[in-house]
Amino acid sequence: MLTLTILGNNSAIPAYGRNPTAQVLETADESFLIDCGEGTQLQLSRYKIKRSRICRIFISHLHGDHYFGLIGLLSSLGLMNRKQELHLHAPPLLQQIIQLQLDAALTTLPFSLHFHPLGEDGVIYDGKRMTISCFRVNHRIDCWGFLFREKRNTRSIMPHRAKAYEIPMAYYEALQQGKDYTTKKGTIIPNEEVTTAATPSKSYAFCADTIYDESLAAKVQGVDLLYHETTYLKDLEDRAAERYHSTSIQAAAIAQLAAAKKLLIGHFSSKYEILEPFLEESREIFPNTELALEGVSFMI
Amino acid sequence: MLTLTILGNNSAIPAYGRNPTAQVLETADESFLIDCGEGTQLQLSRYKIKRSRICRIFISHLHGDHYFGLIGLLSSLGLMNRKQELHLHAPPLLQQIIQLQLDAALTTLPFSLHFHPLGEDGVIYDGKRMTISCFRVNHRIDCWGFLFREKRNTRSIMPHRAKAYEIPMAYYEALQQGKDYTTKKGTIIPNEEVTTAATPSKSYAFCADTIYDESLAAKVQGVDLLYHETTYLKDLEDRAAERYHSTSIQAAAIAQLAAAKKLLIGHFSSKYEILEPFLEESREIFPNTELALEGVSFMI
Repeated sequence: MLTLTILGNNSAIPAYGRNPTAQVLETADESFLIDCGEGTQLQLSRYKIKRSRICRIFISHLHGDHYFGLIGLLSSLGLMNRKQELHLHAPPLLQQIIQLQLDAALTTLPFSLHFHPLGEDGVIYDGKRMTISCFRVNHRIDCWGFLFREKRNTRSIMPHRAKAYEIPMAYYEALQQGKDYTTKKGTIIPNEEVTTAATPSKSYAFCADTIYDESLAAKVQGVDLLYHETTYLKDLEDRAAERYHSTSIQAAAIAQLAAAKKLLIGHFSSKYEILEPFLEESREIFPNTELALEGVSFMI
Repeated sequence: MLTLTILGNNSAIPAYGRNPTAQVLETADESFLIDCGEGTQLQLSRYKIKRSRICRIFISHLHGDHYFGLIGLLSSLGLMNRKQELHLHAPPLLQQIIQLQLDAALTTLPFSLHFHPLGEDGVIYDGKRMTISCFRVNHRIDCWGFLFREKRNTRSIMPHRAKAYEIPMAYYEALQQGKDYTTKKGTIIPNEEVTTAATPSKSYAFCADTIYDESLAAKVQGVDLLYHETTYLKDLEDRAAERYHSTSIQAAAIAQLAAAKKLLIGHFSSKYEILEPFLEESREIFPNTELALEGVSFMI
């Protein structure tokens, strides 16, 4: 299971108490921070997100509302004397921006910061439980989305049954993979007799800032939860296109094309105080839509 | 008259809802922003400080808690389509840090940003009503304090009296400067007959982050309001010295040596939730001390 918590859902200029983009995706044993607008370290405290679990940070692009909080967070982690390494997946230029600011303060971080520049579409992290890929989206400057996919979960063994059939423990891994067991006498014990089904592996796609682009749907096909920006309501489609952003109904159209199970919308323009119209417009096309409200966690 | 509003009073890691250093000094016709920690743009909104009045920003040094909010503020001013020029007085390296981040976002600010690198002690702004100087303080990295001094105010003319004596308007400026008037018949009209005294010109010194350094007192001698950091209480004098910071009683000692009229203390370490002990300790030595509490304005 994955849990996504929204820390910021506003575009560009902070407004109505809403913060710039930041999200945390938590798995059973680690957390990923996705974008890090100004004030993210305060939002992490407010929503009691454990910083020590954050092992990787992903920055979609170098517009300030997606990364100006990063240097403050890194500095604070340093002052808190973090020792565990931290991985940063971000546009290449961010490495220089961070280093310049650390140098200016004569700061050496007490932890290893591994910088992984984003580039071609493809896998950027292949862990024990998760595969994470990046894909280019179409924005005013270089910009990437991220696809988080749990690896195929294994079947669960029912120990009392496996013991009753005298299956040796050395064979348990094969059972988890779904294999049947053949006894010494040649009797076949069907896998379903001694295991229960694997929980389905889940996936989350974060599409960052993007113009309406149908080619995106193929990159996030069948995802359990799709985050797509909706900077504007549908009546401002022209302005959205000019600024390489999307509207409520465009996000919903992508979710539909991608056959996503659920759509999460955010990156609301500061011109909107009331957010409900975003939900209403999106749901007309894609009913299973939710607003990315700050402090709210979504179970995937 | 000058008005100083505190936007942030905490050191390094944000804690207990306290923000990193930022202050606004307002005069009759313009405002100066002093330091700009992360989240300053939100604090400006919270305390309803008019951004359009801010014409100059002063950054004391390049530790993040004194400037990480600047790039966000500049970007927002740009998005709000500010046209009036803005002057930035800051350590030289900040120019490169800002430019790199603007370039990364392909952003061209719609207003002129004039960068004035800090260097030798002396006057950095000589305006109509104010003279502003910088002076080096003793911290772990290059660090500057700022002295804001109103120019000598002129005497106020009592128009009905000046008219009664038939003093020509061309002579009014001389009256404001305190000169007597001699009539065509040779009668001397003493200045005090037609003017009232000038209001005293006020001064404010911001001493940034500094170790206890008695030489500072001479640089801010006789100032109306002195801001001096008190990162620690008096029992942590050794730690303060190690980290090039000061304690409550050290700040009070400097205020006393400088014969300041009033002392304002801030930059509290995140280890302290309760701030009253700072006040108690400082007041033992310098009774006219106040805590730099966020959102509070001090009339100078």
